[in-house]
Amino acid sequence: MYLAIDFGGTRSRVGWYDADLRLIVRADALSQTHEPPPAVIARLIALAQSVVPAGAMPVAIGLSAPGPQAYTGLILHANTLPGWDRVPLAAEISAALGAPVYTENDANLAALAEYHVGAGQDADPMLYLTISTGIGGGAVIGGKLFTGWRGLAIEPGHVKFPAPDGRVYSLEALASGTALGRLARERLAADDSPSVLRGLALVDGQAVGEAAAGGDALANAVVAASGRWLGLGLVALTHLFNPQAIVLGGSVTRLGDLLLKPARAALTELLIDPAFNAPDLVRISTLGDDGPLLGAAQYARARNKGASPL
Amino acid sequence: MYLAIDFGGTRSRVGWYDADLRLIVRADALSQTHEPPPAVIARLIALAQSVVPAGAMPVAIGLSAPGPQAYTGLILHANTLPGWDRVPLAAEISAALGAPVYTENDANLAALAEYHVGAGQDADPMLYLTISTGIGGGAVIGGKLFTGWRGLAIEPGHVKFPAPDGRVYSLEALASGTALGRLARERLAADDSPSVLRGLALVDGQAVGEAAAGGDALANAVVAASGRWLGLGLVALTHLFNPQAIVLGGSVTRLGDLLLKPARAALTELLIDPAFNAPDLVRISTLGDDGPLLGAAQYARARNKGASPL
Repeated sequence: MYLAIDFGGTRSRVGWYDADLRLIVRADALSQTHEPPPAVIARLIALAQSVVPAGAMPVAIGLSAPGPQAYTGLILHANTLPGWDRVPLAAEISAALGAPVYTENDANLAALAEYHVGAGQDADPMLYLTISTGIGGGAVIGGKLFTGWRGLAIEPGHVKFPAPDGRVYSLEALASGTALGRLARERLAADDSPSVLRGLALVDGQAVGEAAAGGDALANAVVAASGRWLGLGLVALTHLFNPQAIVLGGSVTRLGDLLLKPARAALTELLIDPAFNAPDLVRISTLGDDGPLLGAAQYARARNKGASPL
Repeated sequence: MYLAIDFGGTRSRVGWYDADLRLIVRADALSQTHEPPPAVIARLIALAQSVVPAGAMPVAIGLSAPGPQAYTGLILHANTLPGWDRVPLAAEISAALGAPVYTENDANLAALAEYHVGAGQDADPMLYLTISTGIGGGAVIGGKLFTGWRGLAIEPGHVKFPAPDGRVYSLEALASGTALGRLARERLAADDSPSVLRGLALVDGQAVGEAAAGGDALANAVVAASGRWLGLGLVALTHLFNPQAIVLGGSVTRLGDLLLKPARAALTELLIDPAFNAPDLVRISTLGDDGPLLGAAQYARARNKGASPL
């Protein structure tokens, strides 16, 4: 039996899986990360314990967490978790639950899950991007999770581009939900063009997405600009990895063609050869928010068996 | 015995290697690619035959050629070889020399050589960039050449960036030898600032490099700007691959710190964590112009044996 924990900046999910990785019990709750780390960790452990049947012990625990992790079980630089730099989350969970904890970046684990049972099944190489508050990613190459020299690989949100304002931005500052909010606020401040966003107290990514879906011209222009930046990111990934599939997940992808059409147009325009543009190169996640949780269960089983699909 | 052929846009090199990949005979000549492909191929085959001892036959032939190649033996989109799109070079060499030809991109083969016996020895992942007329690259991951879905991976020269003029450029249009010439000509046309380049009939990358080395301010500014773009490329590669080493080769790297200092400064400034900045992350090729040739011999031997280090 495997326990999987997906610790998220907003919401955390836990699952109790049998030996064949069938989900037996699942629970989720707000992470309440506005509280100090010790209180957040205690709540996470209680949530995990709530799905472990009385008298049962997990063989192994898979832990999904934000930020690059370098196989250390420390959380580093998760933009969604300010104040969480180098917190030894895995060690505390292992001590509380009495089983080895195998930890990995949430996007890496979602990539593993998409490769095994999701939209990226058997694609090689398969890249996964999650676009929500920030932008994360993972890759499966030759059937194995690719994590680089120190477990830090596939941080597409941190590819840097010079923007028209002369400053250098990370991709996640140009194409995430956070970016949608910032870009919209900048456009609203720049002139008096009409927009439903002008009436709102909070112009964030969700508000921009809803306005764009409703046909607001300013919001649509912002989403299209972000989609173009996303496309530049996909062009870089495609010329570097020649992937068979890039699976896109995360809340921002729910914008659909408003975001994806300019992204795909950038690929068509900027790839040096159609041979890079694999059939179904860009795909939408089929696992959604449960990808990291399922990936964590797969990872715990594979690591614990010493099996290869890491 | 293995025959290695490095077909270059300017110069071609051939080598006859024993079973342990010791070089026995070597020859090189200008490729004269201003002539039509059939004449160029006939000259290349004669050059190759010149190093094969009388009565000897190669077990296998390794062929290095420019441009992404998709394992097909066709040359595609080599910027240094206009008019060579989809020329079946490998098939013609195989027919003429009576041995199987294993072909790969020149930068991929140089990467393999740097990994086995050059500046990138045993680094994992190891990336290689060659910066000359254009920018090519290769990667060795887990000891194997990484080539992606259709053999097209690691084309760092085709990562795209928006430039201050509002247009989108490939990295090789911003940081190659060709780019040095273009950027210098643009600066010379923009104002009357003094420069030794103003007296020259041809302002190309080599002239800019020589002027920069001689202390010319305009040339130095051009090289520094290209070094900054190179740095943005290295930042993308580092956040995506988390490499243990990036080996830089090609004629433009002879500019040394004039180019590399701004590139390294971009890494220091823009990497999200010092953990990405491996000790000796950026290294200079030790194999120089013979890297693709040696890589071609290694590749021919490995492919012919069905061994794994591809």
